[in-house]
Amino acid sequence: MAPIRIAIVGYGNLGRSVEKLTAQQPDMELAGIFSRRDSLDTDAPVWPVAEFASYTDQFDVAVLCLGSATDIPEQAPEFIRHANTVDTYDNHRDVPRHRAAMDKVAKENGTVAVVSTGWDPGMFSLNRTIGQALLPGGQQQTFWGPGLSQGHSDAVRRVEGVKKGVQYTIPSPEALDAARQGEEGLTGKQAHLRRCFIVADEADQERIENEIRTMPDYFVGYEVEVNFIDEATFDAEHTGMPHGGHVITAGDTGGYVQSIEYTLELERNPDFTGACALAYARAAHRLREAGEAGAYTVLEVAPYLISPTPLEELIARDV
Amino acid sequence: MAPIRIAIVGYGNLGRSVEKLTAQQPDMELAGIFSRRDSLDTDAPVWPVAEFASYTDQFDVAVLCLGSATDIPEQAPEFIRHANTVDTYDNHRDVPRHRAAMDKVAKENGTVAVVSTGWDPGMFSLNRTIGQALLPGGQQQTFWGPGLSQGHSDAVRRVEGVKKGVQYTIPSPEALDAARQGEEGLTGKQAHLRRCFIVADEADQERIENEIRTMPDYFVGYEVEVNFIDEATFDAEHTGMPHGGHVITAGDTGGYVQSIEYTLELERNPDFTGACALAYARAAHRLREAGEAGAYTVLEVAPYLISPTPLEELIARDV
Repeated sequence: MAPIRIAIVGYGNLGRSVEKLTAQQPDMELAGIFSRRDSLDTDAPVWPVAEFASYTDQFDVAVLCLGSATDIPEQAPEFIRHANTVDTYDNHRDVPRHRAAMDKVAKENGTVAVVSTGWDPGMFSLNRTIGQALLPGGQQQTFWGPGLSQGHSDAVRRVEGVKKGVQYTIPSPEALDAARQGEEGLTGKQAHLRRCFIVADEADQERIENEIRTMPDYFVGYEVEVNFIDEATFDAEHTGMPHGGHVITAGDTGGYVQSIEYTLELERNPDFTGACALAYARAAHRLREAGEAGAYTVLEVAPYLISPTPLEELIARDV
Repeated sequence: MAPIRIAIVGYGNLGRSVEKLTAQQPDMELAGIFSRRDSLDTDAPVWPVAEFASYTDQFDVAVLCLGSATDIPEQAPEFIRHANTVDTYDNHRDVPRHRAAMDKVAKENGTVAVVSTGWDPGMFSLNRTIGQALLPGGQQQTFWGPGLSQGHSDAVRRVEGVKKGVQYTIPSPEALDAARQGEEGLTGKQAHLRRCFIVADEADQERIENEIRTMPDYFVGYEVEVNFIDEATFDAEHTGMPHGGHVITAGDTGGYVQSIEYTLELERNPDFTGACALAYARAAHRLREAGEAGAYTVLEVAPYLISPTPLEELIARDV
């Protein structure tokens, strides 16, 4: 069977992850990378994103490696006019609107979009839906981390005197155990602690720690840890992009606690987000080949469609 | 919307679990229980299983709570002629044949079967397939337990002098950690230990322990623990049916380890198996309502179909 030809739109962290991951997939090849820049540090063909429509005979699915703030909502409905797409749109509240917008254009043009793949939304969404279906009266909680929070790291770096800084969000061990027992009433603030690593002059440290702890929205009400470290340690240990988390569903089936837990431990967040997007790119291609058109969330895609292994082999091997 | 009317076929541990779980589901009601016996200890209508075909206007889906050794392969193709079915057929090697047999009859009769639901096969199958699709070059391992093994418990009880006995299968902590790091080469025997609790006269204990440790197939090659306890302790602590396990997939995305772990901790094994079967009964009903016919494994069912929550609400809430 001919390989699935992948195009990448956008060449930031996620685009570079998808580029290297395409090479790990047994049934895919990288066709080209769309960018606003003329040249990129890559061996793949680089195509001008403004001419997206004229390259659609050269690829099967475009993986949209663009920001969720403005790029995806503005540009994705234009891309889906011309080709199958997968995105990792992560503005949870806006997913229904985005899916509907993509569905309309996809149906008009006979294309397939899989929207909001990745791990949250994405794999975590799948586990929330399945967990609640299995244990309908149960308690469910999502925990994020241990992981680097981009927004909170930006916030600590804005404090005067902070030379370098990162913030990791960490699930509280007590909250994890309570969730596994199906206990109610844990809030986000009880469930996570915020651990900061900061490089700063010693004279500034007390003030910096105080400013971080009293920062509204970001830190007030959370258990906060502020660690001051030297720059060499920071550069050696805190420049990665680890992340992960848990979806825990626990329910009582008449006197018996049943607990379901889905855990991700990711040494590099964009790599795993990209891995999810690529797997659903396979589903987008297959759905289109089967004559379907429209937009799908991960909840609507039969799981075997994301696997490179033929269904008969999956049934014989995995079931 | 009218509730989904569930019939139960067979009234052992699984059938009784499905009976109580149906009451927890917001959109289901129990129509009746098919049995070979005239009367059961239940408030539900009891119907003679020999007259299955004449009751099909009274229910939407039959949950087949029957043994996998002979009942399901022999009887399920007859039931699917007359009504939608869900089963928990767990003879992994025979699933392709069973699915094909059910698919043929279901398509001839316009019915829908979901086969081999439960947790393994079932939820674990789903996680094996998805994990390998996301991390195609990765290592994957399934661990069972801590959990009561019926087969091994039967085996220890056959040893002369054993008054009461159970065997729990327990994943080795070292093997779990190795799997999370993506290490290769762990076999089932290295990955699990077998812990027995036995009630026996003191004079017999040395011989019994030796017979257990040297029992081929069941215990030889495994790390084995044999604990002798008194009967009161046994009755208080070892008459439940706990089980669970892990599906761990870990892959390297170019220098970074990404780990996916799905964990079940079940205080009562048949309750969770029944919960899975009921959720897929909902999918069987919906697929039939949508005009589909045939047999499906869990890999072929879009996840939203198992949820009592409408798709639009799932997308707004879970994605």
